Amino acid sequence: MATSITTPSNVTARTQFLHSGNETYAYRRFGGDAPRPLLCLQHFMGTLDNWDPAVTDPLASGREVILFDNAGIGRSTGKVPDTVAGMAAHAVAFLDGLGVATCDVLGFSLGGLVAQHIALERPSLLRRMILVGTAPRGGHDIMHIEKPTLAKSFQDPHVRGYARLSTVFFAPTESSQAAGQAFVARLAQRTDDLEPASGPEVAAAQTAAFREWEQFSGERFADLKTIRQPVLVVNGVHDEMIPVVNSYSLGEHLSNAVLLTYPDSGHGSLFQFHESFTRQAAAFLAPDSPFAPY
Amino acid sequence: MATSITTPSNVTARTQFLHSGNETYAYRRFGGDAPRPLLCLQHFMGTLDNWDPAVTDPLASGREVILFDNAGIGRSTGKVPDTVAGMAAHAVAFLDGLGVATCDVLGFSLGGLVAQHIALERPSLLRRMILVGTAPRGGHDIMHIEKPTLAKSFQDPHVRGYARLSTVFFAPTESSQAAGQAFVARLAQRTDDLEPASGPEVAAAQTAAFREWEQFSGERFADLKTIRQPVLVVNGVHDEMIPVVNSYSLGEHLSNAVLLTYPDSGHGSLFQFHESFTRQAAAFLAPDSPFAPY
Repeated sequence: MATSITTPSNVTARTQFLHSGNETYAYRRFGGDAPRPLLCLQHFMGTLDNWDPAVTDPLASGREVILFDNAGIGRSTGKVPDTVAGMAAHAVAFLDGLGVATCDVLGFSLGGLVAQHIALERPSLLRRMILVGTAPRGGHDIMHIEKPTLAKSFQDPHVRGYARLSTVFFAPTESSQAAGQAFVARLAQRTDDLEPASGPEVAAAQTAAFREWEQFSGERFADLKTIRQPVLVVNGVHDEMIPVVNSYSLGEHLSNAVLLTYPDSGHGSLFQFHESFTRQAAAFLAPDSPFAPY
Repeated sequence: MATSITTPSNVTARTQFLHSGNETYAYRRFGGDAPRPLLCLQHFMGTLDNWDPAVTDPLASGREVILFDNAGIGRSTGKVPDTVAGMAAHAVAFLDGLGVATCDVLGFSLGGLVAQHIALERPSLLRRMILVGTAPRGGHDIMHIEKPTLAKSFQDPHVRGYARLSTVFFAPTESSQAAGQAFVARLAQRTDDLEPASGPEVAAAQTAAFREWEQFSGERFADLKTIRQPVLVVNGVHDEMIPVVNSYSLGEHLSNAVLLTYPDSGHGSLFQFHESFTRQAAAFLAPDSPFAPY
């Protein structure tokens, strides 16, 4: 289907650049018609180009969507932080530079860690949070891509680019793999104004951030209780990258979270079930209620 | 709020009686406008009068709702079975007697066990299933009302009737307890054509059925994979009667289930968040898709 230039879409949205603090950040913004934007925080090694238009575009029909490359990712300047706190500081600098006082956030995987850190450090910035395929500080088995179930995909030299995502983001069933192929085809619809792909230095710094995030002190998950924002937690039950047990911990220890899990799916459940996910996400983002159930 | 006699509601629906097999079953049916009814299967010691109108009535606006007293409950004749299989046989006899070839089912707590057994024995009877606060065969810590956290409510002679439900179905927070009071007030709206309350013999037989349901042979949860119906699994994260881990097992081992959990709530999450629950349930029941995500 041809995408008209007038349809707000990550297939066609121009990349923009904002100077704030010491860095220049690459971002895209499109859509509208809501009092506040939805900031989308991206996964391990992902750039602006890794946002599935089947997720971003329906969400942009009801609000402005802002996609953001953290420092050192894509065409954003600077060094990739090796802590979640460092990444959160860049996201806050970006929002401050853009003049956004309050937004909603969709944090996927690594992006969900960053969203939680912002909620703890600058709660006034975030109204409602959607956390997909992610984990609390002190979570279990977070992004160990060296383990056998993942290493074969990450180390296979024949699997490159988007194709790798159809193996690691989806479950080993015919239906989930077919959804993975469709996801890759949707990403490939964007053909110019592309971001450079992330390399081994990005992987190393972000992996260090995951390792640090697995550490905790004091009572495990106690900091989650201090996050008061309504949260929608989403995961596929066969997530090999950040197992679903981490979403259970978020649902149980956040004081104000609804958990939604999808069958027959892995880390990329939001891409596999994009119609359901965007409907649920839009319904969750609509109310001004202080309570998460929607 | 006065309920008009013309509004389909469990506050006003007359109790009806159906003779099928060797028994006469008490039931209520109300609402309409869908190709198939929604059969509601009730919790431990619950009768037709224990169905919250804030749950049944919104659901009845889009389909016919059928509430059912199993054998030996309320004004249904016969002996309360001491196995889930025995309860399922009565539910099937009831549907056969009523001429229902296919229906949707809402199974709450004990009712969810019965629904799963029907799905395994007579899958053609059920199209879509909603399982709330329930557990798979071989589940964990199912309805041990003798444990300290529950015994104080069940053994307190000053806590009687519906009032007990506001303690055992809700979480020990101010907001959840307030929701429990509102729930009890809604049940009390029905003032005539009432069912007799369940006594100790009912409790003993149903408790035996829970104990049998905790047993399993072969691979744990393997039978869940053979249930192909789309399922919506729902629970409160602070359920003391049937802990939420059982809903995680359902979500992971059923092949086609979406899981939804609610914060700040216990066994009666569907009553506490009745607006959200009935909206989600109606959205789940609407499609004819073979896939659970909605």
